[in-house]
Formats: sequence, structure tokens, C-alpha cells
Amino acid sequence: MRKDRLLLAATLTVIFSADIYFILLPKLHRARHSCPCRHGNFSLSSHISSWTFIPLQDTTPSEADNVGSKLDRLFAHPLYNIQAPVLGPEERLLQVEQLMDYYRKKVSRWERHMKLYSEAAAASNITVVEHDVAFDPDASWLKFHLGISRYALYSRRDPAITQLLRDMQDMTVVNADYTQDEKALKGACDCSQVVKPSGHHLKLALKMQNFAKAMFKPMRQQRDEETPEDVFYFVDVQRHNAEIAAFHLDRILDFRRVPPVAGRWLNLTGEVLQVTRNDELRAVFFTSPANNTCFFAKCLYVCKTEYAVCGTPDLLEGSLSAYLPGLSIAPRISIPNPWIRSYSFTGREEWEMNPLYCDTIKQLYPYNSGNRLLNIIDMSIFDFLMGNMDRHHYEIFTKFGDDGFLLHLDNARGFGKHSQDEMSILAPLSQCCMIKRSTLLRLQLLAQTQFQLSDVMRESLQKDPLQPILTEPHLSALDRRLHKILRVVQRCVRRLGKDRVISSDFVKSTLKSEAKTESKKAR
Amino acid sequence: MRKDRLLLAATLTVIFSADIYFILLPKLHRARHSCPCRHGNFSLSSHISSWTFIPLQDTTPSEADNVGSKLDRLFAHPLYNIQAPVLGPEERLLQVEQLMDYYRKKVSRWERHMKLYSEAAAASNITVVEHDVAFDPDASWLKFHLGISRYALYSRRDPAITQLLRDMQDMTVVNADYTQDEKALKGACDCSQVVKPSGHHLKLALKMQNFAKAMFKPMRQQRDEETPEDVFYFVDVQRHNAEIAAFHLDRILDFRRVPPVAGRWLNLTGEVLQVTRNDELRAVFFTSPANNTCFFAKCLYVCKTEYAVCGTPDLLEGSLSAYLPGLSIAPRISIPNPWIRSYSFTGREEWEMNPLYCDTIKQLYPYNSGNRLLNIIDMSIFDFLMGNMDRHHYEIFTKFGDDGFLLHLDNARGFGKHSQDEMSILAPLSQCCMIKRSTLLRLQLLAQTQFQLSDVMRESLQKDPLQPILTEPHLSALDRRLHKILRVVQRCVRRLGKDRVISSDFVKSTLKSEAKTESKKAR
Repeated sequence: MRKDRLLLAATLTVIFSADIYFILLPKLHRARHSCPCRHGNFSLSSHISSWTFIPLQDTTPSEADNVGSKLDRLFAHPLYNIQAPVLGPEERLLQVEQLMDYYRKKVSRWERHMKLYSEAAAASNITVVEHDVAFDPDASWLKFHLGISRYALYSRRDPAITQLLRDMQDMTVVNADYTQDEKALKGACDCSQVVKPSGHHLKLALKMQNFAKAMFKPMRQQRDEETPEDVFYFVDVQRHNAEIAAFHLDRILDFRRVPPVAGRWLNLTGEVLQVTRNDELRAVFFTSPANNTCFFAKCLYVCKTEYAVCGTPDLLEGSLSAYLPGLSIAPRISIPNPWIRSYSFTGREEWEMNPLYCDTIKQLYPYNSGNRLLNIIDMSIFDFLMGNMDRHHYEIFTKFGDDGFLLHLDNARGFGKHSQDEMSILAPLSQCCMIKRSTLLRLQLLAQTQFQLSDVMRESLQKDPLQPILTEPHLSALDRRLHKILRVVQRCVRRLGKDRVISSDFVKSTLKSEAKTESKKAR
Repeated sequence: MRKDRLLLAATLTVIFSADIYFILLPKLHRARHSCPCRHGNFSLSSHISSWTFIPLQDTTPSEADNVGSKLDRLFAHPLYNIQAPVLGPEERLLQVEQLMDYYRKKVSRWERHMKLYSEAAAASNITVVEHDVAFDPDASWLKFHLGISRYALYSRRDPAITQLLRDMQDMTVVNADYTQDEKALKGACDCSQVVKPSGHHLKLALKMQNFAKAMFKPMRQQRDEETPEDVFYFVDVQRHNAEIAAFHLDRILDFRRVPPVAGRWLNLTGEVLQVTRNDELRAVFFTSPANNTCFFAKCLYVCKTEYAVCGTPDLLEGSLSAYLPGLSIAPRISIPNPWIRSYSFTGREEWEMNPLYCDTIKQLYPYNSGNRLLNIIDMSIFDFLMGNMDRHHYEIFTKFGDDGFLLHLDNARGFGKHSQDEMSILAPLSQCCMIKRSTLLRLQLLAQTQFQLSDVMRESLQKDPLQPILTEPHLSALDRRLHKILRVVQRCVRRLGKDRVISSDFVKSTLKSEAKTESKKAR
């Protein structure tokens, strides 16, 4: 009996040990590895919150803060509910009649063109699938274009943006073509430059059934691949997922300066090859040894065929960015970024050597008045968060003059390296020591654990059909970089004082009313 | 008491189940995955050995066969010890006096050139490291060149080959330059073709202290990367490890038609940049963002800078292939492979459609007599084992006329996919149903477990400083492909009979004596 008990005790000990060793420990181990590194951020957050020199409502997380959607809570926060001013005609980019007229002309030109093309195609034995197109006065892209104002590309709760994202994801493609960039080259290849910041000529312009236009950038890199450390930023591949993530990040930062971007699986045969009217585009299609449909970069055709992308067998994932209104009705100008990089192997720009570079810039038109320099600093914050070093130019709508917002176009070279924080991207902020009050407030909000940039980004990106858009290391990098931005501001404030660093960005009458509304709400 | 026993029984059952589930099963699982798949080969071997219609000595493995070096045992086998005929002057590629004369002239031209260059360099402030060079009548490369005969590039136990491999691995580099291929382009880029089978212009010609010349091909791909399935064979990257492995495979097959190749870590700064006298080569060097020394492909310079290779920070691994004697003293001709591929996206060659293609080839000069067609079949076996689809041309020394052996040059597109056996590479064998008796005997030997191609290759490649040269899946693929070759021969024999399929390849007087020696030894 005693022996049996002893044996039983020994046996139970063995079972418990086995349980601990084989079940509990591995579970703990797995849990430690899959946890998206919240611990590190907690300590950083508390470090930052001890420096909240601008008081924000509800900074201590309550129970209710940790359930439900963080993104909904973010967008419900007073900072994201500042009432927009009523827009007069001068503050809108386009007038309804003007755009409708433009649209109607486009539709009738398309119909004329299609009739002629069909006859020519039949004569040369080319089969092109013809989809019906329709003039739709309620099209989401029309509403997007009509909603562009002096302040942003779209307003915060515009249902047309949600609809436009959905349309880009699933609307029938009626035409595919090269983009204007490619066409400008006329197949000649601009080889005069060592580098071609314009990318690899694999992007396509797609037209949807309701005449929405979108630019397709195909997937070139797996989500978990990092840019090799020897690759210069200007020859890095363009990442479709970076385009998608940039739209979401820009919206979460409340800039709203990136046109809507959605992911889509494109059928290269049915949605490009069979609908294009461009013989040159048709000519770059081929079938790979693995029987997949592929197309290659036109400009590099002569020497290189590796620059091809392939479907499986026809489906290829990519990003679709909504087109802005045509230049003929909404002209834009492209201006070199004062903090442009050298785009050569050895060159260095003045800002890289001269710590007082910003003082020079501050004296120069248009950076010597208005919001332009603060807008450049906003852009550098946006780019630093993404790790995008390829911001050589920026664009503005000419209609709004020098005070217009900067468009954050072409973000495909962001999100290349999650393990590196390229501090030089922040040079405009760290050299000028200026930031908009509204931007700083939002950044501080996003650094708090009840919102947390990585969490709201993860949630926002989950809405895209190609999700997951960013890997966890890229999401964590956003939190880490956000804290680095706040630390740069902190250092500036220590050196120069709050008043010189933090600018009231609410200039002009309309913005004063915004500021009033905000302070009213904050009470 | 009873209850206790029941509990004990239950407990023990749980322990045993836990033991089986957590310890035994995972062990079994691991064992199955780590075992280098010998079982499959065993059964294949026995399948093949039941079909040994040509009796070989010592086919049953004894105890002694499984210890020590398989490679030594292979090279000690009678099949690898057929005595070579005494070579007359007409059977040697070069005569001693002729080569010494050529070498002396080269040295004095180098000295003249260097004197002039040093003056010019000093005037234009270029610092070039100058190493002493010496005329060495015992140089291993000289002995290699002198050993080239009508039958092979080197004899089986030539100590000069071992010395040449060692010299290429560690001798001081006195000069680096573009290869003649690049120079012929004169920087103009031959973009008239869609594809450039000549590769990516990253290869360099290196001159050693004793005037040995070798072609350097840098590492472009990790050992465990497989060629993506959508990539056409003709745009695949060139692999330095394939060049090294091809030399070892060719020697193990006893063809000896690949010039010696060794791996080396090259110092891009000290052994290329600082010793080159070519300004154009110097101009393609740059420092990467990660502070590594890199150089990029000259021809693609204008548009593409991604085509660069980088050291860490200076050291770059690559293959060094010994140069053959210059064309002025040992002319060669390059002849299109009758089984050439189309080198286009859609084209198909006649051999791919016409199963009777070989009948046509057999009628045509030079394939209608001598060993030429059998040599082509040898080459296809070599290429099939490596998975090399890029054999567009082959070269022969003009001195030996139509009966000379075929040079197996440029093997860098082999070993791209271990998981695929491209049967079309074997078309010359499967369509002509002919094979040299000596080749077949060696293939059968290498299929036996006491030698086993993968084992002797692994052993041979371990001697290279860059080892491991091939991953295990590539080594296993060799065994699998070898058995496929033997099965193709087996099918031919069944269909046409031994006599029509297996050719006595010992033609001409000298070879008769070889055959005699062989039969004597086999007794």
C-alpha cells in the first residue's frame, strides 16, 4: 500500500513535470514570441506622457478604452471632430457644372473612339472585350473630386471615399493603358539619367465602368522581405502595400493629403490584356515557363526581360490609387523638396552638411510666410514614419496658391526597412524646430496606449482586401518612430521654448473658427 | 487499494501516451526529415543493378567499401585508370617552346605597359598598387595549358591542376579588367537582342602574379535560393557556385572538358579597384548606403543601378575559372548546339516538335561521322545532371579538327532548381538513343551505393574554400537525375538493342590501345 502510494506520488510528479515542460513552457515561449512587443512601448509611453506639456482630455485609459474599436474611438476624439468651415466656391477645387461638363465630354469621346477602334480592330483581327460604360452623376470618384478643398483631399466622414475604395476593389475594368509618364517617353527610354525615380514602368492606368480612373502598381516584393542594406533608396522597388498603407497612415494622421488607395487582385488577362487598346502594352505580355500570364517593363525591354511581373496564373495583386482630377481642369505644380537628396552614389546636398540650412530656407519664398514650411515638416513626419526617403518633389494645386496643402503622392518606396529609423528624413523638423500644434496634438494622442498608432493602423488596414498589408515589425516600427518624433520636438522645446517651436497652424479666418470650435469642444 | 491500482494504471497510461506523443513521435518526425533520402535511392539502385547488362567489377559493396574516401575509391577504380596513350606533338594543343615564347613576350609587354602607365597615372593623380610580376617557367597555369590534349583538358592525376586550383585561391592579383566580351561592346551595350545570353557584365578578368589569368564571377544568389518558376532559363542569374560545382561534376564524370574552377573571397578594393588600369572599371565602383564596396554592371549603367554586387565591406565571394590559352596560339570555334533553344518567349525549335529530329542531324556534317554526336550526348548528360538549359553553343579547338572534344564552358546557369528535372535537356540522348560505352559504364558506377554521385560530389566540393558549394537538395537531385538518365538508356536498349545504342567510343589507333588497357585491367 505504502509502496503504491509512493509510486503514485512519483508518477504524479512526473506527470506534472511533463505537463510543465511540454505544455506550459512551450505555450509561454510561443506567447512571448507572438506578442507584438507591447512591453517596450508601454515604458516609452509612460516616458512620453510624463512630458505632456499640452493637456489632452482622457489621457488615463479607463476600462471602456480597452474594448471595441480603437480606430472608432480615435475618430470620435474631439481632435478628429473639429468642425470644418463652410466652403465657398473659392475654397473648393472644382465646381459641379464644370466637372459634369468635363465628364460628359469624356464619355462621348470614349464612345466615338470605341466605335472607330472596333472597326479598326476587326480589320486587323484583334479581339478586344468591350464593356458597356455609363454616365453616372452619382459616381463615387465624381464626389471625391468635388470634395477636394483648400484644406484637404477629402473630409473626415465623407461616405464617397468608402464607396470609392469599394469601387476600386471590385468595379469592372473597361480599359487599361500605360500611364502618362510612360507615354511621354514614347517608348524611347529616358536613359540620360543614372537613376529613374519614376519607377520601373510596370504601373498601369485603369479605367472603370463608371469612368473612375486608378493607377495600378503590381506587387514586386513579399511582405516579409526587407530592402537589402546595400540598395540606395532611389533604386529600391516600388511596393504596392506601401501605397495602401500610406493612404491609411495619412488618414489616421488626419492629413488627408493622399488620394484613396485600395488593394485588388487584378486579372491580367481579362482586366488588362483583353481590354487594352494599346498595341504596345499588348506586345509586352507573355506566358512564363510556369504557364503564368506576365508582362514586362516596356522601357527596359531591349536589354532586360527579368523586369516582369507574373500572375498566378492570371491574378496579380497590386494597389489601385484613385486619380486626381485631370490637369486641364485642376492644374498642379511640382516643386522640388528643399530637403531633396542627391540621387547619386556620392553626392551630398547642402542640408546634409549645414546644420543651419533651415535658416536659409526660412528666408526664401515661399517658405518665408504662411504654412508652407510647416506643411513640409508635416510631410517629413509622414515620410519618417514610413521610412520613405524618396520625396524628391511635392505637388500643390495651383488654384489654392501658396497656402494650399501639399499632396503626398507616390509613397511606394515607404515601408522598405522596419529595422532602421532613418533620422535624416526628419531633418526639416529637427533643423527648423517647428511643428503645427494640431499635428503635435494628434501625434501625442497616437502615442497613448488607448489609441496607439500601430493598433489603429492594424485595424484600419484590416479593411483592405489584400490584408495583412504590413507585417508586425513594420507596425511596431511606427510606434517606435512616433516616439522618436516626439523626442525631437521635446528637445526643440527645451532649447527654444514652447512658443517658438509649436506654431498655431490655424491661420486665416476660416482656421480661426476651426480653432474656436476645437477649444469649445475640448471644454 | 484497488482504487489506487486503478489510478496507478491510468497514470501510467497517461505517462506512456505523453512519452509517445511528445518524445517518440517528434523524434521520428525529425529523423524522417533529416535523413538525406537514401531509401529512395537504395530501391532505385537495386532496380538499376538488376539491369546491369555490362558487368562491372566489385559491384557488391563490401565492408571496406563503406569506410574512407568514396572519391579516392572512385578514382582508384579501373574505369578511372585506363592508361592514356603516349601523346605525340600532333595530339598536344601546344608545344613547350611556342608557349614559353608567348609567355616571355607577354611579360615584357606588361613591363613596358606598366612603365608607361605609372607615368600617366602619376600625372593624373591616380594611385594604382603595383605588384611585382615574375616569369615562372614552372607556373601551374603553364603546365595546365601544356597538358591540353586531343582527348581532354587535363589528365586524371595531373598535379598541376591541384596547384592551379590552389594558385587561383590565394595568389596575389596584379591586375583586374573587363573580359574581352565586355570590351568588344566598347561600352555601347548591345541592346539589339531581347536577351543577352552573355550574362550580366559583372564578370572580371583577373591576372595573377605569375601571369595566370582567371575569370571572376561574383556571387549573385544565396545557396538556398531556387530560380523562381516564372523566370526563363536565358534570363536567370549566373551562379558562381554552379561554375565551381560544374568543374567538379565534369571531373567526376571523367569528361575533363571544363577548365579548372576554384572559389575565392576577393577583396574588391585591394584586388580589383586598386590594381585595375581600366578607368571605366574604376568608374563603376561605389560605396553603398551600408558602407560596403560595390560595383555595377557597365552595360546597364544608363538605366539600372540595381545590378550591382557588393562586398562586406570589401570581400566578395565568387568563382575563378582558369583561362584557356589565348585564341592567337590556340584558336577555337564556337558552333551552335543542334539542340539549341529558341531564346524567345514563344518560339519553338524543330527538335521540340519533331521526334525524328535526330535522324536529320545524323545525316548532316559533322554529326554524320566520328564522335561528334556522341560528344553532344555526353554534354546533354552533363547539362541534365546540372539542370543547365543554357547550352546555346559549344566550342572546340580547331587544331584537333572534327574529332576534338567539346569544351563545356559557361556553366553558371546550372544548379538553379533542385526540385525540377528538365527532361528536355536530355533530348539528344532520348531522341538519338546513342551513348558512349565509357560514359555509360561510369554513370552505372556512380549509381552504385558504394560510390554514389551525390557522395563523391559532396566530398569533392568540400575541398573548395567556399564550401558548402551545393545544398543537400541539389546533391540529392544529382542521384535522382542519374537514375533518370540510366532509365532513358534502358528504354532505348529495350527498343533498339544494346548494339545499336551503346557505341564503342574508342575510335582511332590510340583509343584502341586504351580499350585494350582497360580490358587487361578489368581481368
